[in-house]
Amino acid sequence: MSEIPALPPEHPLQTRTAGSPIIRAARGEPVERTPVWFMRQAGRSLPEYRALREGVDMMTACNTTDLIVEITMQPVRRHGVDAAILFSDIVVPLRAAGIDVEIQPGVGPVVADPVTTSDGVTRIGALGDISQIEAAIQMLTRELADKPLIGFCGAPFTLASYLIEGGPSKDHAKTKAFMWSEPAVWHDLLAALSRLCGEFLRAQILAGASAIQVFDSWAGALAKPDYETYVLPHSRALLDSVADLGVPRIHFGVGTGELLTSMAVPECEVVGVDQRVRLADGITRIGPEHSVQGNLDPAALFAGEDVVHSRAAEIVAAGANARGHIFNLGHGVLPPTDPAVLTNLVAFLHEQSDR
Amino acid sequence: MSEIPALPPEHPLQTRTAGSPIIRAARGEPVERTPVWFMRQAGRSLPEYRALREGVDMMTACNTTDLIVEITMQPVRRHGVDAAILFSDIVVPLRAAGIDVEIQPGVGPVVADPVTTSDGVTRIGALGDISQIEAAIQMLTRELADKPLIGFCGAPFTLASYLIEGGPSKDHAKTKAFMWSEPAVWHDLLAALSRLCGEFLRAQILAGASAIQVFDSWAGALAKPDYETYVLPHSRALLDSVADLGVPRIHFGVGTGELLTSMAVPECEVVGVDQRVRLADGITRIGPEHSVQGNLDPAALFAGEDVVHSRAAEIVAAGANARGHIFNLGHGVLPPTDPAVLTNLVAFLHEQSDR
Repeated sequence: MSEIPALPPEHPLQTRTAGSPIIRAARGEPVERTPVWFMRQAGRSLPEYRALREGVDMMTACNTTDLIVEITMQPVRRHGVDAAILFSDIVVPLRAAGIDVEIQPGVGPVVADPVTTSDGVTRIGALGDISQIEAAIQMLTRELADKPLIGFCGAPFTLASYLIEGGPSKDHAKTKAFMWSEPAVWHDLLAALSRLCGEFLRAQILAGASAIQVFDSWAGALAKPDYETYVLPHSRALLDSVADLGVPRIHFGVGTGELLTSMAVPECEVVGVDQRVRLADGITRIGPEHSVQGNLDPAALFAGEDVVHSRAAEIVAAGANARGHIFNLGHGVLPPTDPAVLTNLVAFLHEQSDR
Repeated sequence: MSEIPALPPEHPLQTRTAGSPIIRAARGEPVERTPVWFMRQAGRSLPEYRALREGVDMMTACNTTDLIVEITMQPVRRHGVDAAILFSDIVVPLRAAGIDVEIQPGVGPVVADPVTTSDGVTRIGALGDISQIEAAIQMLTRELADKPLIGFCGAPFTLASYLIEGGPSKDHAKTKAFMWSEPAVWHDLLAALSRLCGEFLRAQILAGASAIQVFDSWAGALAKPDYETYVLPHSRALLDSVADLGVPRIHFGVGTGELLTSMAVPECEVVGVDQRVRLADGITRIGPEHSVQGNLDPAALFAGEDVVHSRAAEIVAAGANARGHIFNLGHGVLPPTDPAVLTNLVAFLHEQSDR
């Protein structure tokens, strides 16, 4: 089991959420029931979110204390999930570091002036003002009391892909060409992104986040040798940079069946598994030193209650063989999801585990 | 080794291409050099293709004998690849069966009136007139002489996803919900698609195609138990439907690391491996009963000659441990690829293997 350094005893995180099922499961401590939260639980599946976002662009919403607090709390109130996830976006720290990036509806992050091999690392400044976000976290953790707030950031590879491609990419061809043809510049760029995201995570934890997740949404585009050579060292450095704060760290990527054994580094406590891998297989690959998170297919939420319940029960049963298990979807909640289905799933899981 | 039924001795395929490196490698017979072709070698990477397609929509191009012949031959002439792949699209047989489907530039196939659980299978008619395609294949095989023409079709799951989603989808949520909530209708739909594609493959082979590939572009969206329950039986039926014609059958999907062991069915001779899996690992999963195809990352073609050559050499070396190895990309040629890089790669591979 990887050693988690202790927080200073006077730090409020030390006691506030330590007994919550999410934190206990993340640390591999016994829990009475499988805890659950959902990636993108705060967002477009909720009518109250869509109402609040009307006329407000995503980047503004991510940098406005009141909106962050309200949007983060909406799914906690509605679904009764066991943790809140900070309402933010993986490109928020890029913007706070001076990169001209917008989040366009229906597209995703768009970078005005993509990074090239000739400018590379010089474009990544220090993390600027995120006081609106820190204030939101302070308010949230007071309101959440013993329920954890999960902070997060993007992994260096995924952020690099947005920076180099200029937006979402299916093939990541420019990113990979950069990586293979200019490895020294690449490593500098990823190290800079790792430092930037580390600052962002640290600020979230110091403001009150009880756990963090690193999202490597695009890692699954890489074969294992490339992932291990060009990407993993920087993700490890990022995760390690908050080791002294002692909160559980979740390492998650999409389409990572080939990478799970590599992602289960000592610098994280939990590895997320997407829906393409049977959780039982994921647990085997991840091993007994880590807890796991996942992995109901977000598409299952459209298939009716019987399908949702039977698949969720299978996942809970498989999770019993992990060091610890946090129930989640294999990827984010899809915008057309009926929120009543999520509420029902949380209730089902809470009953299941009480048996 | 799976048994390949013999073609009637008078059939021209019996002798015309049987000695070609592609066919020999597919059958696991010794070859002097690793043969190579590229998925999407006929297409947007070539200026002569773009010139020919000006003002001609994709569906028209796929159904016009002269265009099919010319576009199919362009990469053979330019690159010296070891096989031609029929210029077509996986939705061509859907259109020939009466489905209103267009191929929109920059989008892909768009189905005017998506299939639902209430109409399902009734929408899949018999294969209509494909005489323009058959005539093209007859002309091509004469021109290609002892070089194989590879025919192809989409796999039932991938076609079902287009039909149900109405176009390309990232999450396939409607498709999966259909599959899980209405399994009987689902199986009828996939069986109908399997029959339709089987007719299309048979027509291609009888007109002169020396090998076929079944493209399951979206199979990687499924976890293995779902793939085996809802999809694989129909892909097997499709592959089996042309078993009596005795041409090698290639079974390929994208993001199929979890599925390779399942995809290596007795009804195919070759399993394609995408770039996310090390070819050596793919060969282990596929086993000694099948040849393999793949798997250079299409993005590597943007990283300079040294990267291309060193990665290609690694793949050739790994392929030596398979029953047989056909070199290919892990997925299709990306449109911005410099065709000179492909020509250079073919030359490099032909030199390599002659050593």
